[in-house]
Amino acid sequence: MRTIIIGSGAGGLTTASTIRKYDKDMEVVVITMDKYVAYSPCAIPYVIEGEIKSFEDIIMHTPEDYKKERNIDIITEAKVVDVNSKENKVVYEKDGEKFELDYDYLVLATGGTPFVPPIEGKDLEGVFTVRTVEDGMKIDEYAKKSKSVVVAGAGAIGLEMAYAFKKRGLDVTVVEMAPQILPRALDPDMAEKVKEYLEKEGVKIILNKPVEKIVGKDKVEGVVVGNKIIEADMVIMATGVRPNIELAKKAGCEIGRWAIKVNERMQTSIPNIYAVGDCVEVVDFVTKQVTLSPFGTTAVRQGKVAAKNIVGIKAEFSPVLNAMVSKIGGLELGGVGLSALSANQNGISVIVGRCKALTRARYYPGGKPIEIKMIFDKNGNVVGCQIVGGERVAERIDAMSIAIFKGVRVDELANMEFCYAPPVSMVNEPLALAAEDALEKFD
Amino acid sequence: MRTIIIGSGAGGLTTASTIRKYDKDMEVVVITMDKYVAYSPCAIPYVIEGEIKSFEDIIMHTPEDYKKERNIDIITEAKVVDVNSKENKVVYEKDGEKFELDYDYLVLATGGTPFVPPIEGKDLEGVFTVRTVEDGMKIDEYAKKSKSVVVAGAGAIGLEMAYAFKKRGLDVTVVEMAPQILPRALDPDMAEKVKEYLEKEGVKIILNKPVEKIVGKDKVEGVVVGNKIIEADMVIMATGVRPNIELAKKAGCEIGRWAIKVNERMQTSIPNIYAVGDCVEVVDFVTKQVTLSPFGTTAVRQGKVAAKNIVGIKAEFSPVLNAMVSKIGGLELGGVGLSALSANQNGISVIVGRCKALTRARYYPGGKPIEIKMIFDKNGNVVGCQIVGGERVAERIDAMSIAIFKGVRVDELANMEFCYAPPVSMVNEPLALAAEDALEKFD
Repeated sequence: MRTIIIGSGAGGLTTASTIRKYDKDMEVVVITMDKYVAYSPCAIPYVIEGEIKSFEDIIMHTPEDYKKERNIDIITEAKVVDVNSKENKVVYEKDGEKFELDYDYLVLATGGTPFVPPIEGKDLEGVFTVRTVEDGMKIDEYAKKSKSVVVAGAGAIGLEMAYAFKKRGLDVTVVEMAPQILPRALDPDMAEKVKEYLEKEGVKIILNKPVEKIVGKDKVEGVVVGNKIIEADMVIMATGVRPNIELAKKAGCEIGRWAIKVNERMQTSIPNIYAVGDCVEVVDFVTKQVTLSPFGTTAVRQGKVAAKNIVGIKAEFSPVLNAMVSKIGGLELGGVGLSALSANQNGISVIVGRCKALTRARYYPGGKPIEIKMIFDKNGNVVGCQIVGGERVAERIDAMSIAIFKGVRVDELANMEFCYAPPVSMVNEPLALAAEDALEKFD
Repeated sequence: MRTIIIGSGAGGLTTASTIRKYDKDMEVVVITMDKYVAYSPCAIPYVIEGEIKSFEDIIMHTPEDYKKERNIDIITEAKVVDVNSKENKVVYEKDGEKFELDYDYLVLATGGTPFVPPIEGKDLEGVFTVRTVEDGMKIDEYAKKSKSVVVAGAGAIGLEMAYAFKKRGLDVTVVEMAPQILPRALDPDMAEKVKEYLEKEGVKIILNKPVEKIVGKDKVEGVVVGNKIIEADMVIMATGVRPNIELAKKAGCEIGRWAIKVNERMQTSIPNIYAVGDCVEVVDFVTKQVTLSPFGTTAVRQGKVAAKNIVGIKAEFSPVLNAMVSKIGGLELGGVGLSALSANQNGISVIVGRCKALTRARYYPGGKPIEIKMIFDKNGNVVGCQIVGGERVAERIDAMSIAIFKGVRVDELANMEFCYAPPVSMVNEPLALAAEDALEKFD
């Protein structure tokens, strides 16, 4: 029996390793366009920033490791050009040659491609997207000879890159079409706190406007935003990622509203073809709508589910809460579940609790401000939470992920038992205080 | 209407402030033996260590603040000598005089007293307990002229003090009767990791033996442990705390197995007398047995419940999980819910999941080891968790507190959605990995 996995990102390689964990005999072949595998794209901004020494550090395994340690074959720098789901075959090209390979199971882990709007100048030298290690390496080199950069798109990756460039001494402008930064992750009021931090650090931010044009003779010299030209030696297009669904279409898999359609077992409409990661659509836990969840953690959890089902172990992938966290300089920010903005857009009425507190006892040195916005449905169940603070945000988001998943009520959360020691927390846990604030608004 | 509160610890003052929050008219009088109020006893070791500059820092409010800002009267350095619950009166002594005061509601927030075993030499100069700011100040002074210290008792406070003395350059020996350190908080295997850390830091630890005798002519010169004398200039008795229940007895309140008996509303057997904090007994969430919960957080939560009931707002205190955390030097340790040891003692059969991981992505600088032990009942519900690690332990304990409270199942936890960014977490959250490890042991 052979499983072919197309793609070597978090989803693809987790599927491969998990199959091997439970099945010593299955032949596992990964085909990937990438040269480097098993790296963490989320780490690229931190290499650019200099927090992580080199790109080699973020590559955790080589294809040779996979062969030697787990008997997984990885065919790198190879492009799958066709999937024949009737004959259970894929066709791929490598080094100019075409090859065919049969499969019993196929896993589409084709990921996403950075979306670059079709604007003038997008192909000039000095315009980059951020996806692969190679992208990172090229950006790193180009930044060495650059003085200024425009980052188009104020999602987490865009802002992490912006901060990284600032730390390296470049003049940085972020341009975002939406009326706020982090439009997918945070509500406007919470995003504003992140914006203030970045501006204090010297990053310029322009909202409500797209990059209309990139100008320059042979290479980037500036961008046009509104009726102004912003001078820049380089441009980072962090304008979102689109799921790669071409191969799924060729295979005849059903495509949903946003991406490849899968069931709870990560199975496509063709029973022996699975799909995981950024190329699939999922169900939102709160709204029950289909959505995208382009996170490494989602890909990993989906890879485990797909692999288990392939080897015959029961496993299901649950609707997502899109728990996210980012660290930008001295600021951690995170969100999980429904935002108030998105509640509005979905016609869900919510009650909001807030808390401003510190991460340690008031008198304990090094404590940092933390702000929480907690969102409850009108029945009093927690449905979302956003946190911006100097430390210890990630695990609080995780705690709220559990709370939302289990439908914790506002009164339960206000009275929840939390641990305390002066160097690591306040005697009144901010999560409980935010719930207490909301509780007073119910009657 | 007047509420008298006896005691100015976390429980007493939270009750006072919460009454005032909801009722502007109630007269609120706090009577306390303490000179300083509104300080955090948990902070004393960190002042001794030098992390916090001075004892003034940990006193957050003065009695004058309470009067001015909240119209709460605090009578300090006063001892309540009688409670007449028939006539709703307390009698207290201050400056050698006796006073009587009527109440409509009485709140016993009498706390606990450090238990010092009745051994020879316990009254010598140089023997201390750790409870009040004054204790801390005396210890601080005495340590300046001391070269060596024995800490009797290896609970959190004992170990925090031991580490603090070591940081100040004293020779430190911890003596614990039990076969492990942190016997109430952690299982032996997890406690062993903390012991290794402390020993590496130079703290000597003797287990399975009590301090039998303290020797010295006018002041401490050493302690007898087994058949050996350990030389020491000072001795810290961190051998536990006993609930102060004398006034409750005088009032005629029912006493339970360990301390004052209260219902979910924190009401004693006498309807207009409430009790909160270290002087009451509570119900354990998992075992349903009565137990003690001598934590500042418990006292705060109980104070809110008592106050709300006094002013006529419905509120109930839930059974406790005894969530605890401590930071000792570079190590955070915490526990919540049932330990495997205590499960054994209660005849509950459990399945354990474990995980050794890092607090950041493997390649991200500054990541620290973290170890998790997770405990499930035989139905697959999580009932306990212990964590020892270099950072980010407290919020994970909090997440597990929610999980235990809501009865999260092992498979749910293994597949739970957690957030990820390289500087603050691993793509596979250690909590999920520990659950995954346990899941494989179920069939």
